[in-house]
Amino acid sequence: MSDTSRWRGSLCLEVNPLPNTIIIFGASGDLTGRKLLPALFSLFRRGLLHEKSRIVGCARTPMTDDAYRERLRTGWLAELRSPELERFLELVSYVHGDYGDADFYARIGRRLDEVESAAGGGGFTGRIFYLAMPPELYSAVVPQLAAAGLLTESASGLPWRHVVLEKPFGHDLDSARQLDRELHRHLTERQIYRIDHYLGKETVQNLMILRFANTIFEPVWNAGFVDSVEISIAESVGVEHRAGYFDRTGLLRDMFQNHLLELLALVAMEPPAGSDADSIRDEKLKLLRSLRPIPPDAIGRQVVRAQYTAGAVNGIAVPGYREERDVAPGSETETCVAMRLYVDNWRWRGVPFLLRSGKRLAAKSSRIIIRFKPVPHSVFAPLTAADLAPNRLVIDIQPSEGMRLELQAKEPGPKLCMGTLSLDFKYASILDDGQNMPDAYERLLLDCMLGDQTLFIRSDTILRAWELLTPILEAWQRGDPAAGELLFYPAGSPGPVAAERKLGFAP
Amino acid sequence: MSDTSRWRGSLCLEVNPLPNTIIIFGASGDLTGRKLLPALFSLFRRGLLHEKSRIVGCARTPMTDDAYRERLRTGWLAELRSPELERFLELVSYVHGDYGDADFYARIGRRLDEVESAAGGGGFTGRIFYLAMPPELYSAVVPQLAAAGLLTESASGLPWRHVVLEKPFGHDLDSARQLDRELHRHLTERQIYRIDHYLGKETVQNLMILRFANTIFEPVWNAGFVDSVEISIAESVGVEHRAGYFDRTGLLRDMFQNHLLELLALVAMEPPAGSDADSIRDEKLKLLRSLRPIPPDAIGRQVVRAQYTAGAVNGIAVPGYREERDVAPGSETETCVAMRLYVDNWRWRGVPFLLRSGKRLAAKSSRIIIRFKPVPHSVFAPLTAADLAPNRLVIDIQPSEGMRLELQAKEPGPKLCMGTLSLDFKYASILDDGQNMPDAYERLLLDCMLGDQTLFIRSDTILRAWELLTPILEAWQRGDPAAGELLFYPAGSPGPVAAERKLGFAP
Repeated sequence: MSDTSRWRGSLCLEVNPLPNTIIIFGASGDLTGRKLLPALFSLFRRGLLHEKSRIVGCARTPMTDDAYRERLRTGWLAELRSPELERFLELVSYVHGDYGDADFYARIGRRLDEVESAAGGGGFTGRIFYLAMPPELYSAVVPQLAAAGLLTESASGLPWRHVVLEKPFGHDLDSARQLDRELHRHLTERQIYRIDHYLGKETVQNLMILRFANTIFEPVWNAGFVDSVEISIAESVGVEHRAGYFDRTGLLRDMFQNHLLELLALVAMEPPAGSDADSIRDEKLKLLRSLRPIPPDAIGRQVVRAQYTAGAVNGIAVPGYREERDVAPGSETETCVAMRLYVDNWRWRGVPFLLRSGKRLAAKSSRIIIRFKPVPHSVFAPLTAADLAPNRLVIDIQPSEGMRLELQAKEPGPKLCMGTLSLDFKYASILDDGQNMPDAYERLLLDCMLGDQTLFIRSDTILRAWELLTPILEAWQRGDPAAGELLFYPAGSPGPVAAERKLGFAP
Repeated sequence: MSDTSRWRGSLCLEVNPLPNTIIIFGASGDLTGRKLLPALFSLFRRGLLHEKSRIVGCARTPMTDDAYRERLRTGWLAELRSPELERFLELVSYVHGDYGDADFYARIGRRLDEVESAAGGGGFTGRIFYLAMPPELYSAVVPQLAAAGLLTESASGLPWRHVVLEKPFGHDLDSARQLDRELHRHLTERQIYRIDHYLGKETVQNLMILRFANTIFEPVWNAGFVDSVEISIAESVGVEHRAGYFDRTGLLRDMFQNHLLELLALVAMEPPAGSDADSIRDEKLKLLRSLRPIPPDAIGRQVVRAQYTAGAVNGIAVPGYREERDVAPGSETETCVAMRLYVDNWRWRGVPFLLRSGKRLAAKSSRIIIRFKPVPHSVFAPLTAADLAPNRLVIDIQPSEGMRLELQAKEPGPKLCMGTLSLDFKYASILDDGQNMPDAYERLLLDCMLGDQTLFIRSDTILRAWELLTPILEAWQRGDPAAGELLFYPAGSPGPVAAERKLGFAP
């Protein structure tokens, strides 16, 4: 650790990696190259991927094992070239085929048996099928995997078969229910790993520890002391190559259904009975069940939606959303949403939870802000309680992970001057030189190998999220006047600020 | 401010300096040269000493005004030489005489009238008589000042006459009571400024703001959440040139009666009704009244006293206390005291307050540590609540003023590792380059000019402190076996650590 004064001791839960096989569908795709393989290589270097483990890429593109390895060596992993990378590449092989063809899965099955037995046989604890592909294909691939016997576990559950799914999980309550039913025909909930990469980020993982391994926060973590909670994921990028997909989906589905409601659940849930996955996921579900649904006639007062127009980001002119390629010219799709929610339980009664996410905003910044109430009374006459800035706990998720606690303090000097002091911490400050923050996918892949579903989203939670959001989507779709109008903001601006202020967002 | 990310905004209580005269008795002494004149010059440079204000030094040594100014210019203030210093020196004059001679005071009176009328007459709001002299002289000087009419205020209280006294205020309850009676024959309590320079230090002044201008600390600032409070003033120096005085006095009188009990009162008191001096001093007194007196038969269990033997500080060999010049060879005087106290009120019932101070310890370090209780239950099985380090709020008073909040957090990485993270802040980080932390005396002198007694100790509080400590001093004096024995620790060591642990001090 580079700054020893800021970090002391470490108590680790033991991790004993066991040999297993990771099968990636969509092995020639962007997610695989940018995220999954670098994460697996990083785990390998940390000694957290067992040396007998194997990685099998599967995709349509015809390619030999060597050609696939060469693509990793000179492409996605080129920057990481080293003798270690060569040892890692020996774990990788490749199978190509047509996702609709039963023979493809039979060949995959044979390949898995081959590589596992060549690795020394025995001891393999399980297989991860990572579906790094458009969700429309889930309904095609999963039944094929099942038909080929690849998802079958023995009664003991060992060796296990896990399936990792990327978002989106459905596009409304009905479609999510249907997808859920289809998956459960072939898989138990214990086998399904619905990934939300936000949950793998350091500061998000730290939320539970912050709340439940410290004495001082929990007593003030309630409506008695918290004024509001703001969760914001702001992006400066636009819709990029995902424009076609995004235009059918919109920001509410893309960001709220998963990331924002999951973060809200972690911030607001009650202490779980234990740290096992279901204890925690039970609490998250309970919290989402306590979220007060927005009545149709209040949508316009609690939800703001907006779309970006032409503008400039970091001084570079960018087109408006409707001018983006693959976007319908008169598209009504929202690119920014702000929402005020309430949690109807003892802890949070009356506290506004302000959620917000948008594209093409002024800066990339994801953070959670716990804004505390003012002091009940100021003893510092003539200053009143309203003169004293309230305490805030700010948890930065990206781009720079860290946290800070804002306090009122005395300015040094013979006069009595008060100001806001930040006790702060940046995760980067305790990393050794040259070390990077671990990517969210490392933790999530490791957890999947260990059979820990804590940071993966359970079926009932996803359905509850859709239950909350679908009426809003439908009201927008209907053009319900009570749901408010689509607003506009220039790309590179802070967003539809005036409307957000009305919801209760702080300046 | 150099680090703008850590400090924002400043809301100041207005200070309008008015012309007044500061008369320093003991004007050729060490305190005057090292502390008072530099502090007055610094106030002058900050615009907080009115340009019409005047400083009159009084002492035995015969000297002209010019000779005194030259002593400042080439001696105490030599490092600060500048055109500004020359302007400051114009405010200074000097009167010499015998403290027992009534004529001395008559001459001082005439000089004060002269300098004030030469400064433009009128508008002078008051005179500060700063007694920077051994307290044995208070009983001689104050009656003389009174007899010369120099302490007389009009019925309106304007212009005022303030008298500043240094510690010690008596050497036990009886002598303090007697001194108090003598002073009150000539002065009202409103005129008496008993200085405790610890109360002028930035982090100490900040304590009240920290507690009462922030929402998040007060809810956990009680026996429900606090495990113990430790207040420690450790010095690496020995008794130096004060050995003769110290050997008669001992550490308990020298440090506990004032600094440590005052700090304890600020940390533990209830919110005052207002920020006026008496509201705050009422609460401090109330707290000291709630301190449970140590029963004579428990002194040995709650108080440790020790004396340093020969050793080495920072690698340099130093003699034992009994070998110091002016110390009696078989002296039983304590140079280190540790004490466990309890506050019998609703807020603090059962919480140990651990107070400690010593000389010739390993390092100079004064700090207050609020140690919070462990979390009530760990959800991070197999880690138990006892495995998780408890939260601590550490307030550093010297040598480097600042604070830090120690939290449990996740170590970055794919594994779940917890450790102690410090959210920290050093006052030096927000000072402009080249700026120094203001000295405690600046604030205290300014307050005395403004008639603000908040940071000065009131008579009743001092008497209460003596009431608590005198029985301990007497038990030691008697050699009461129940009061424990004098222990020994080598100079430069951490002190009588084993005995302190038994009191409840953390390793």
